[in-house]
Amino acid sequence: MNSQSGRLFLQIPGPANIPHRVLQAMESPLLNHRGAEFAEICKALLPKLKAVFQTEQGTPVIFPSSGSGAMESALVNTLSPGDGVLVFAIGNFSAMFGEISDHLGFSTKVVELPLGGGIPPERVFEELKADRAGKFKAIVAIHNETATGVTTDISAIRQAIDQAGHSGLFLVDTISGLGCMDFRFDEWGVDVAITGSQKGLLLPPGLGLVCLNEKALQAYRTASSPRHYFDWGAIIEYNRRGIFPYTPATQLLFGLDTALDMLLEEGLEKIFARHARAAEGVRRAVTAWGLKTVALTREVASNSLTAVRVPTKIDSDALIAYTEKHLNLALGNGLGELSGKAFRIGHLGVINDLEILATLGGVEMGLHRMGASLQLGSGVAACQEWFLGE
Amino acid sequence: MNSQSGRLFLQIPGPANIPHRVLQAMESPLLNHRGAEFAEICKALLPKLKAVFQTEQGTPVIFPSSGSGAMESALVNTLSPGDGVLVFAIGNFSAMFGEISDHLGFSTKVVELPLGGGIPPERVFEELKADRAGKFKAIVAIHNETATGVTTDISAIRQAIDQAGHSGLFLVDTISGLGCMDFRFDEWGVDVAITGSQKGLLLPPGLGLVCLNEKALQAYRTASSPRHYFDWGAIIEYNRRGIFPYTPATQLLFGLDTALDMLLEEGLEKIFARHARAAEGVRRAVTAWGLKTVALTREVASNSLTAVRVPTKIDSDALIAYTEKHLNLALGNGLGELSGKAFRIGHLGVINDLEILATLGGVEMGLHRMGASLQLGSGVAACQEWFLGE
Amino acid sequence: MNSQSGRLFLQIPGPANIPHRVLQAMESPLLNHRGAEFAEICKALLPKLKAVFQTEQGTPVIFPSSGSGAMESALVNTLSPGDGVLVFAIGNFSAMFGEISDHLGFSTKVVELPLGGGIPPERVFEELKADRAGKFKAIVAIHNETATGVTTDISAIRQAIDQAGHSGLFLVDTISGLGCMDFRFDEWGVDVAITGSQKGLLLPPGLGLVCLNEKALQAYRTASSPRHYFDWGAIIEYNRRGIFPYTPATQLLFGLDTALDMLLEEGLEKIFARHARAAEGVRRAVTAWGLKTVALTREVASNSLTAVRVPTKIDSDALIAYTEKHLNLALGNGLGELSGKAFRIGHLGVINDLEILATLGGVEMGLHRMGASLQLGSGVAACQEWFLGE
Amino acid sequence: MNSQSGRLFLQIPGPANIPHRVLQAMESPLLNHRGAEFAEICKALLPKLKAVFQTEQGTPVIFPSSGSGAMESALVNTLSPGDGVLVFAIGNFSAMFGEISDHLGFSTKVVELPLGGGIPPERVFEELKADRAGKFKAIVAIHNETATGVTTDISAIRQAIDQAGHSGLFLVDTISGLGCMDFRFDEWGVDVAITGSQKGLLLPPGLGLVCLNEKALQAYRTASSPRHYFDWGAIIEYNRRGIFPYTPATQLLFGLDTALDMLLEEGLEKIFARHARAAEGVRRAVTAWGLKTVALTREVASNSLTAVRVPTKIDSDALIAYTEKHLNLALGNGLGELSGKAFRIGHLGVINDLEILATLGGVEMGLHRMGASLQLGSGVAACQEWFLGE
Repeated sequence: MNSQSGRLFLQIPGPANIPHRVLQAMESPLLNHRGAEFAEICKALLPKLKAVFQTEQGTPVIFPSSGSGAMESALVNTLSPGDGVLVFAIGNFSAMFGEISDHLGFSTKVVELPLGGGIPPERVFEELKADRAGKFKAIVAIHNETATGVTTDISAIRQAIDQAGHSGLFLVDTISGLGCMDFRFDEWGVDVAITGSQKGLLLPPGLGLVCLNEKALQAYRTASSPRHYFDWGAIIEYNRRGIFPYTPATQLLFGLDTALDMLLEEGLEKIFARHARAAEGVRRAVTAWGLKTVALTREVASNSLTAVRVPTKIDSDALIAYTEKHLNLALGNGLGELSGKAFRIGHLGVINDLEILATLGGVEMGLHRMGASLQLGSGVAACQEWFLGE
Repeated sequence: MNSQSGRLFLQIPGPANIPHRVLQAMESPLLNHRGAEFAEICKALLPKLKAVFQTEQGTPVIFPSSGSGAMESALVNTLSPGDGVLVFAIGNFSAMFGEISDHLGFSTKVVELPLGGGIPPERVFEELKADRAGKFKAIVAIHNETATGVTTDISAIRQAIDQAGHSGLFLVDTISGLGCMDFRFDEWGVDVAITGSQKGLLLPPGLGLVCLNEKALQAYRTASSPRHYFDWGAIIEYNRRGIFPYTPATQLLFGLDTALDMLLEEGLEKIFARHARAAEGVRRAVTAWGLKTVALTREVASNSLTAVRVPTKIDSDALIAYTEKHLNLALGNGLGELSGKAFRIGHLGVINDLEILATLGGVEMGLHRMGASLQLGSGVAACQEWFLGE
Repeated sequence: MNSQSGRLFLQIPGPANIPHRVLQAMESPLLNHRGAEFAEICKALLPKLKAVFQTEQGTPVIFPSSGSGAMESALVNTLSPGDGVLVFAIGNFSAMFGEISDHLGFSTKVVELPLGGGIPPERVFEELKADRAGKFKAIVAIHNETATGVTTDISAIRQAIDQAGHSGLFLVDTISGLGCMDFRFDEWGVDVAITGSQKGLLLPPGLGLVCLNEKALQAYRTASSPRHYFDWGAIIEYNRRGIFPYTPATQLLFGLDTALDMLLEEGLEKIFARHARAAEGVRRAVTAWGLKTVALTREVASNSLTAVRVPTKIDSDALIAYTEKHLNLALGNGLGELSGKAFRIGHLGVINDLEILATLGGVEMGLHRMGASLQLGSGVAACQEWFLGE
Repeated sequence: MNSQSGRLFLQIPGPANIPHRVLQAMESPLLNHRGAEFAEICKALLPKLKAVFQTEQGTPVIFPSSGSGAMESALVNTLSPGDGVLVFAIGNFSAMFGEISDHLGFSTKVVELPLGGGIPPERVFEELKADRAGKFKAIVAIHNETATGVTTDISAIRQAIDQAGHSGLFLVDTISGLGCMDFRFDEWGVDVAITGSQKGLLLPPGLGLVCLNEKALQAYRTASSPRHYFDWGAIIEYNRRGIFPYTPATQLLFGLDTALDMLLEEGLEKIFARHARAAEGVRRAVTAWGLKTVALTREVASNSLTAVRVPTKIDSDALIAYTEKHLNLALGNGLGELSGKAFRIGHLGVINDLEILATLGGVEMGLHRMGASLQLGSGVAACQEWFLGE
């Protein structure tokens, strides 16, 4: 049976479907990236980016790169060889930050935490309290772990750092958080925030972005790690004139400019509420199916994506292969120890009720085909009830 | 709560969502419509169109027009002023053919038939048997009535004409049938078939098309109706050289060329089976909701669209307004005496299982909101079961 | 040598290159042509169209058709069978209006005038003065003859009609004039103006448009010509509610909406000045090559296109084939008795200085290759001088 | 007078105008970058890339980055901290490679050579002969210096290295060379070649690419420079399965796939001949204007771009600002000590004769406006003669 015609439901946890308006912006004719027209776009873009980071004091820096490039930039611009880095791992993507730090030669300690929970502030406090020598020059936390669908209370982590009286820089990966869930750069005392283009920023992959504050800039001035491509200094300086020290990925920047307009026009609060509503609908469907999310509690459950544990007799990879082949539905796979045991539903960006229902309907069909004992339509109905406010 | 972000579910009975490949073809750069490159496209396109009409003997003619323009062309090219035209009306669109005929000054008899049924061959036989004087020079039938979601057995109508020994031309409107449901120009003895670009041909509106046989061409030669724009002769002659006697709608023709490729690559049988499967899923949902289709029997129910009667206390226009505003779902309204009493779901073109589920899920939410006593998820579940083959 | 890579220079006298912004508008997702969103676009569009026709009293009507469809509509909506039509032919396109009138069964008199000149007002006066019986119900003139690159003074024709005291309707074909050269519907006393989408309106082919005044509407009410597709009444009535009585060519209407915005943002005066400047540059090049335009005088030379006579030993069709094959330059051919003897350069729409220079440079290369004794670069230089204001 | 309508002539030395076919590929819907469909594209793409590098033994690696990122990757993957790097600087871009090396902490020697010439093989020989201690682990040369429009004979540099018996890795920047001028990775003994997406590869900016041979891979295994983002190992390993260790810039990869198809369909030899022909046309125009190229001899003049020295009384930046503002023509500026003294014309990618003529016509107008004493049309005519083969 081939049901492959029609639209792809790309419900991986990013990249998500791109709004038509953003697609059109990216299709604008190429222009001279050192000319006056581009300079205007560039200058207008950075303040909008600040608004999305909810910062007045921060400085955004954009790289043609993946999100992992932005992570690398956060480390090499603020640290010197051998510096200590403390990473809290609650899933594959937070663990990856530890690997990057390790590869780049920093003295990295990864605190492995149980899957399904966020980063406990008390644990942060303990670790930092124990670091009397101030070995850790950077503390790395993830805002939203894309592997497990778990959110961490970044504000609480900041408080734990402060309570421990620790002076390390606070680096926060909000790749799948920014633009989907509340993220307050200034208020939460983040020193460097890291994100990518392909999640809440509504773009295809291709841009890595950071936002850094004055404290991070001071660290930059003394950090002696070798660096060039990801060096902040030249970019910040060139950006003042609306240019870049390298040939920028102009088409993605056109798209970013429009995506930021869309985010700010809709308003961050509305966007966060929209994501929360969609996520709750998905979680109610999971409950109706008699399944569990990887997220252990409702409090830590992400609003960008939901990782769902499959019944033990079912291979989640087989489920994913089935929906991709037969239903034109792309789901995220389980990573690391969740491989084969969980699948992930992305519900971020510009997604509406019917797209959620379609996704849930497709997951139901796939689970049923894999032999799960669930009632067809049950998850859809639970979500519909929620959407209807009943 | 605004759920208007994300993709529009355009589930009116055409225009339908355009496949990306067709969109890209229509975005090709303009070219000289009297140059060699365009002539090649034009010459390649017509044989493919014949394949979709399932004809070897027919000649297709394309107009920049709506489908009603193609209807007009069928009349003015084959008839002389005052000629009799017999039209069987089973809904608004078949009735419209009668109005066109009337407006153009032909002596038109419209046989009004009950809504929800097809055209009964025996009635055709009676009418023609009674026309001993051969007053009716043209007999007009609709293959698929878009107002009611009802299909007529065109082959049986042909047989009725033959049994009555009537020599009138057989004009068939297959605007919402061609490319969705089986339509056999040669085998069924159609003299002129009429269609438009925006249904099974996978394009935006803008082209009217006819296919005509030798008998229609003979009628053309003696038909004295005044005509220019819709005249077949010059177009057929110019087309041999790959050009048109007017400036053709080149971008739509590029799209048509690609759409025809897609139809022939998938294969007509598969396309018809795909539409039948989707339609049956929708009908099972309607039954699960405890509602009735406008089509009175399963046998005459259309595979392109389903017209659904709403409970008496509900206004179908309010339902449609609700889903359009709150769910980004566009449904077709009830026409004529079905106004306010029925809505129409289009399920034609390249549409997949999840798009059908999303549509049904949205209709359920809308009906529920309007106060219908149905179980949320029930229609979705009935459709899922059918799709899963259980 | 293949020089076919890169951009096509589509310098036929329309369709012309489409601005990116218009292309993007046409790529907007399909929507419900009976929904609220479309109604808004439709209602906003018509007043802008009026502004481009320079009318407050006129009513525009849009058809999915070619320009010839719009011509047909002007006749069938205002005339009754057998009515007299007076057509002034100064080239193939004005002559075609006569053929259409004839095909539609009107009593048509075509006044054949010499190629290269406009329509002399005195001749109009004579013809009408002689029509004491008021046989001619419509007088047809062309604003810009696309076959010869000649403009007629429409205001002077109106005066001639008035001086003759003739009450016939004044129908003006401004297909290649509107949006390129000054055209004043109200001030010039035009009763029905006819145009198409693919010239000054910056669109691909596919729309025919008319603008009609109160006098034309009065004629409509009594005109008994059979008509349906091109009937004005239903369209005007439906348009008040933002809909159409048929399925409109939505994508082209989106494009038209944007094109009208562009025209009105730039301002009609600037647009006319821009076309005049480009046309003069081309004419100076023609003079520098030692060639003649088909237009006999500077006064009647069109600002949309220039038809150029080639030296007698050269076949203009061979020239056109050469530039198309070897230079990616599409030129218009000579029509009718100019076949093989002239080529046409379109310089309408959004075209800039360098596109003009490229076109002239390509024509020079082609003429040189065909054996013309001209100096390479001479036409380009003459045009550059003009552009530089020297 | 505003002549800003119509098409932009983006004649900077890259990015260049993107072919429509490549644009369309980049507009393909997003897909799952870990799904089966993407894996196929990825696996098919790399062999095509090898063909364009003219290598059977090399391994291409693609980064979401600018070209400078690819330079960085060439260094950090093959060197250990403190290793010696020998860079030959013949302009700003070759000098930049030295800066990058320096920033990354390598012991960098930059041999500054006169502007306008290539890298003399004898100088390479001398430098390496003198390096008895084998201090230089990498020798960096540029294939085509984009700042001056000068090409170096890479094969001759390889011979000089071999004659000196030096074992350093040979890193070659062919950012503005590959896909425009002959570049033979295997035959010329290049160890790492570096390029970007936005020149001969016909894409927008956003991808950095390297090609590396077995010797470079061996160096990789022992090179101890800290690295993560630009590390080759994981990418090469993941690529075997058609995936990437990071979220790849999928849309650019779709475009790259199509661009490589276009290059291989046309054939590298034809592409190089086409660039040579265009470049010679531009150089003849420069001579006709009485000006000099920055390239000192015909032998070293680049076929991708031409840098032109302006008369001493003229400011090249004013010229560039004029053509950008008044002629919709973007030219490259003079860099470093050429600032204000030269401008650069890009003539790379898919560009045809008329686009070259338009560019030359615009430069002539700009130079004339700036007060240069040249004859309008003279450069165009010289180029036309060359194009016509006379």
